[in-house]
Amino acid sequence: MRASLPCLAALALSACAHPLVEPAGPPAPPPPSSASLAAPAAAPADPLDALDGDEGMWTFDAFPSARVEKLHGFAPSAAWLEHVRLSSVRVGGASGSLVSARGLVMTNHHVAHRCVEQLSSKGHDLVADGFLAGRDADERRCPDLEVLELLEIRDVTERVTGATRGKDDASFHAAQKAELAAIEKECAGDAADTRCDAISLWHGGRFHLYRYKRWQDVRLVFAPEFGAAFFGGDPDNFSFPRFDLDVAFVRVYEAGAPAATPHHLAWSREGAKAGDLSFVSGHPGATSRGLSVAELAWQRDVALPARIARLHEMHGMLAEYQQRGPEARRTAEGTLFGLENGLKALEGRLLALRDPKLMATKQAAEAKLRARVAADPALAATAASWGDVDRALERLRLVRPRYDYLERGAGLWSTLFGHARTLVRAADELPKPNRERLRELGDAALPAVRQTLASPAPIASELEIEQLTLSLTLLRQELGADDEAVRRVLGPASPREVATRAVRGTKLASPKVRAALLAGGKAAVAASSDPMIALAQSVDEAARAARRRFEQEVEGPLDRASEAIARARFALDGASGYPDATHTLRLAFGTVAGWTEGERAIAPFTTFGGAFERHTGRAPFALPPRWLAARGKLDLSTPFDLVTTHDIIGGNSGSPLIDRDARVVGLVFDGNLPGLGGDYRYDGRRDRAVAVDVRALRHALDRVYGAGRVLGEIAAKGD
Amino acid sequence: MRASLPCLAALALSACAHPLVEPAGPPAPPPPSSASLAAPAAAPADPLDALDGDEGMWTFDAFPSARVEKLHGFAPSAAWLEHVRLSSVRVGGASGSLVSARGLVMTNHHVAHRCVEQLSSKGHDLVADGFLAGRDADERRCPDLEVLELLEIRDVTERVTGATRGKDDASFHAAQKAELAAIEKECAGDAADTRCDAISLWHGGRFHLYRYKRWQDVRLVFAPEFGAAFFGGDPDNFSFPRFDLDVAFVRVYEAGAPAATPHHLAWSREGAKAGDLSFVSGHPGATSRGLSVAELAWQRDVALPARIARLHEMHGMLAEYQQRGPEARRTAEGTLFGLENGLKALEGRLLALRDPKLMATKQAAEAKLRARVAADPALAATAASWGDVDRALERLRLVRPRYDYLERGAGLWSTLFGHARTLVRAADELPKPNRERLRELGDAALPAVRQTLASPAPIASELEIEQLTLSLTLLRQELGADDEAVRRVLGPASPREVATRAVRGTKLASPKVRAALLAGGKAAVAASSDPMIALAQSVDEAARAARRRFEQEVEGPLDRASEAIARARFALDGASGYPDATHTLRLAFGTVAGWTEGERAIAPFTTFGGAFERHTGRAPFALPPRWLAARGKLDLSTPFDLVTTHDIIGGNSGSPLIDRDARVVGLVFDGNLPGLGGDYRYDGRRDRAVAVDVRALRHALDRVYGAGRVLGEIAAKGD
Repeated sequence: MRASLPCLAALALSACAHPLVEPAGPPAPPPPSSASLAAPAAAPADPLDALDGDEGMWTFDAFPSARVEKLHGFAPSAAWLEHVRLSSVRVGGASGSLVSARGLVMTNHHVAHRCVEQLSSKGHDLVADGFLAGRDADERRCPDLEVLELLEIRDVTERVTGATRGKDDASFHAAQKAELAAIEKECAGDAADTRCDAISLWHGGRFHLYRYKRWQDVRLVFAPEFGAAFFGGDPDNFSFPRFDLDVAFVRVYEAGAPAATPHHLAWSREGAKAGDLSFVSGHPGATSRGLSVAELAWQRDVALPARIARLHEMHGMLAEYQQRGPEARRTAEGTLFGLENGLKALEGRLLALRDPKLMATKQAAEAKLRARVAADPALAATAASWGDVDRALERLRLVRPRYDYLERGAGLWSTLFGHARTLVRAADELPKPNRERLRELGDAALPAVRQTLASPAPIASELEIEQLTLSLTLLRQELGADDEAVRRVLGPASPREVATRAVRGTKLASPKVRAALLAGGKAAVAASSDPMIALAQSVDEAARAARRRFEQEVEGPLDRASEAIARARFALDGASGYPDATHTLRLAFGTVAGWTEGERAIAPFTTFGGAFERHTGRAPFALPPRWLAARGKLDLSTPFDLVTTHDIIGGNSGSPLIDRDARVVGLVFDGNLPGLGGDYRYDGRRDRAVAVDVRALRHALDRVYGAGRVLGEIAAKGD
Repeated sequence: MRASLPCLAALALSACAHPLVEPAGPPAPPPPSSASLAAPAAAPADPLDALDGDEGMWTFDAFPSARVEKLHGFAPSAAWLEHVRLSSVRVGGASGSLVSARGLVMTNHHVAHRCVEQLSSKGHDLVADGFLAGRDADERRCPDLEVLELLEIRDVTERVTGATRGKDDASFHAAQKAELAAIEKECAGDAADTRCDAISLWHGGRFHLYRYKRWQDVRLVFAPEFGAAFFGGDPDNFSFPRFDLDVAFVRVYEAGAPAATPHHLAWSREGAKAGDLSFVSGHPGATSRGLSVAELAWQRDVALPARIARLHEMHGMLAEYQQRGPEARRTAEGTLFGLENGLKALEGRLLALRDPKLMATKQAAEAKLRARVAADPALAATAASWGDVDRALERLRLVRPRYDYLERGAGLWSTLFGHARTLVRAADELPKPNRERLRELGDAALPAVRQTLASPAPIASELEIEQLTLSLTLLRQELGADDEAVRRVLGPASPREVATRAVRGTKLASPKVRAALLAGGKAAVAASSDPMIALAQSVDEAARAARRRFEQEVEGPLDRASEAIARARFALDGASGYPDATHTLRLAFGTVAGWTEGERAIAPFTTFGGAFERHTGRAPFALPPRWLAARGKLDLSTPFDLVTTHDIIGGNSGSPLIDRDARVVGLVFDGNLPGLGGDYRYDGRRDRAVAVDVRALRHALDRVYGAGRVLGEIAAKGD
């Protein structure tokens, strides 16, 4: 269970393609630091001095207030941190913030995109046209969005490492998984509004339990037109200057009424200016800064290239599919957008990994650590861990194709198939004790599973056929036509025949049918003649086998090795710095600042006027009609987007940018191209977060959208 | 002008995607060996002992007969070599052989695929249904196929290196290009039936002039169904066991009658058996075994991944495009096939380059060479060459996107655009002296240019729109929406608008219109209001600038450096071994042999019976109706395909496999997956050539196709 391998949930098939919106898959755990080892052997003067300026995605329980004060003259208090934590929310796989006492949540349009698309239908394209609810009753429920507020962080390291102590490679993973499930179950009980995730930090250096308030009744309040939210489209994505109003508002409900949310953020009137200190509170998805050199090389040479190639294949298909007509265009748009976003992000990561300087730095650091470990008799057992990593990666080379294609969805790209797999597996898993189940069907995950199965969101069957055809074709190509699992799935038929038959014949597009199969359990699933259920059954044994092999031969050994390395590092240096991102709440600090690209200085702000200059009238450079009509009413000098030095990554989408008074000064929605290397390091000279200025939000809501109802609800504080 | 960078000709845009059928672009030259340096410093006992068994793609003027005799007990005589050379032909970018006195040429179906597709039309799908001419008059002219027979090889090293001696980086390329053009022009004069290519061997170690007999009147005689030629399709491609009848026959004509071809190959009656010595005479496209480590790393980290990503994008688009209907399926099939072939080949190459052992071997060899160079005072000047390579590659990093996308076709994927560019450039270039022209418009290349422009092959305009849209989208993405050239090409319009307007508005689909514009020269082109001409004009200045920069800052310096390294190597070891492949005629030797994959032993032959066992009735595993009908008449134990140890690579497609009596025992059409690493090394344990057995050819032509007319023309010799 590693941060570098997210997207284990069969349900999250398509989310695998959205690195900026990280999948909300099962949380990641590992173990470390027995008391004796965790005791710092020697505490350096200030180990944080090794960091680069504003570097760091800090957990709220270990925020370096002293360092921020030293660098920027301001130290967030405990009360400040608590208020910000409770005003921050996780929205799906990304971020958001509470901005009113009545549960109003601000996030990015692209975070809510899926909901906006699901609420659309032929002739009612909310993605293209935008949405504004005039009153509570008009707010429309998002079929499968979940919002979480972090209530508590607890250290459970001792308990988890105790459960795996002395386990060998093959049993390590099962023991850890069972203990994590037990911890989560004890925490959440049967409360549907509580979610508990036991997560691994420091690649096994610590285990923490994150307890959340959970809302599943989430309703859309406002979304601008896609053309305004994503002006500049793929060509401008991850770049700057930008002119995007990438915002959406949703509201969390309890018992049919807007939830009371005493902790929420006010908006700044005046915004931030260049050089101002600010903070980003959000959920960076997964970074790989603490990975071993061998694991980084694996990502560079195998994992990323394979994924990029597959995403290009999918993207080429979908772009052409859209030519079938307006409905095809509408139903494929969100996925296409996710693919484009994912491709840029992955290609940026690959570029960073191919930089010989980056790898040289990593190699030098690892060599130094290994030398120190080798020189310390107390750490003798750890010295072999790097060799264990090498061997696990050797096995991964063999295991990866079947694991990726049969179990992780690369060969079965279809929402309907995802439902079928969930139902087939739920029938097998739910009768088991919680500790023994697949983690994505453990008690802690069940509310999300139920929400997904109950989602009334329409499923575009023509698109499903194309996706499944393409992925089955890749499956056959990757594993070979003679592979036993491929033969079971395809029989003598072609991928297109199998896909068409399953999609056209299935009843799983209906939430009622899914509910009945879930409720009916093993008997109902066994009695089903649904061809998509049959497809899921035909591949399940092989997929489970591939997963078991991965867990026992690769994941377990890797987790064991990196836990040992993490513990050795703690023993030598103490727990300084910040752990790699794990989809959990972090706080970053930084300032508004442009950067220099080659010889070109890039200013930190754009204005409304710039958007009109860039407007060509053709997507993706076409401002929507509302904007063109409102032009005369707009102050074109209003700041639009801005860049800051905060250390962010995919998953931070929708994070509020807040000043020292915890007032919103912006809304993070992107990073710049150099920042894509942020998976592996932070570079304060060039890595930038991209945000919508709060002044742009206010001005557009007021003058373009007439969204006084939303604005009126948000407290505004000025100088 | 480097073998590793083929596909410079704008005309060969789509051929860039077909690594097994290498583009017939302008030949490659470099320079070496002044007399003093070329003198071997020390001749090792037998430097060929460093080779791996049957390794080597040997030029006909330096075939190692003694080595073959030592290894296999047979030494080809000078007469044998001459007969085989004159019986071998280059067919487009690949290979073939003369097999009758009346100009009958045997090659692969996939080499003739483009011609078969061009001769098809709606309702007359020769690709799907096959073709057999009942008499000479029924043979149908291939619109743009060229066949070449190698008449003479001459060493012109002194002359070429003399022309570039003392030139600096910026002027090196122009001087070399001019001298090569002059040499070719003197050789061919104005004879349309002569083609002369001055080529670089040993990455500048030698320059040879290859003089060819040229046939441009080439007519289709026989092609089986695509389903038989490419049974197993993409899933089975580059694998074994195989069951493909990948053969086609064309005929070369002179003055309207079949050409007299006294040198041709007879067919063996009994075929070859495991262990038998045989030879492959053909045109391997381009290998990279002699590249520096830095250049290999560039291919691994930049060039190959970029190309693979692009090809996946194109493939995903085309596969989906085919869903528009039967015509879309038919017109896209050839290109799709080329893409699949290319993807497998490139991914195989990348896999080989990512093998740390391969790179370690290359690094060790280079380190050794560099140490020897450093230790030799006479070679002091060469020591800096590796640094020159590094610097040139650094510049390539900056130059590559514009060069690839504007000049080499990645951003302008369209046959019609190719015609437009040729016409726009011909108008500018033809008035210049031959030495100063772009090489693809030099006198030596003009017959091929004229043939392409005159081709009556239909152009699928819907497909053109999709291709151009996709590539313009990639162009904008790669260079950015603000790039000046991108702005010139797109203006305010979207890629799809620009593509649609240009394709729908152009008259260039008509060969007559193209002929008129070619004849009309600069005035006619300037007066044209054709939107495709306008598109070509809008990008031409930027494209030429990108090319100039590439030639002066990258190609020239790289050529200069590798020439120096090659000369140093000759000085130290003499010219032993074989030069990297350069699309020119080579002879390989080897035996029929299976191999072992993991723990699985793969037998060297398949049979007709195996094809019927693999038949599922669904493409690509569907035997055509003729085969199913003929089943009762077939001897199912007849050998079908076989594998051999010959050292081959893309471009060898269509090469005859001949025994020591120069009789055809098979027809090479593929390699195996391990063999895809053949670009960088030869591994006799696992690399295999895949061929159709001559007994399969004979049996199928006789019993399945009733092609007695073809069989009767071919001399058969048995024991």
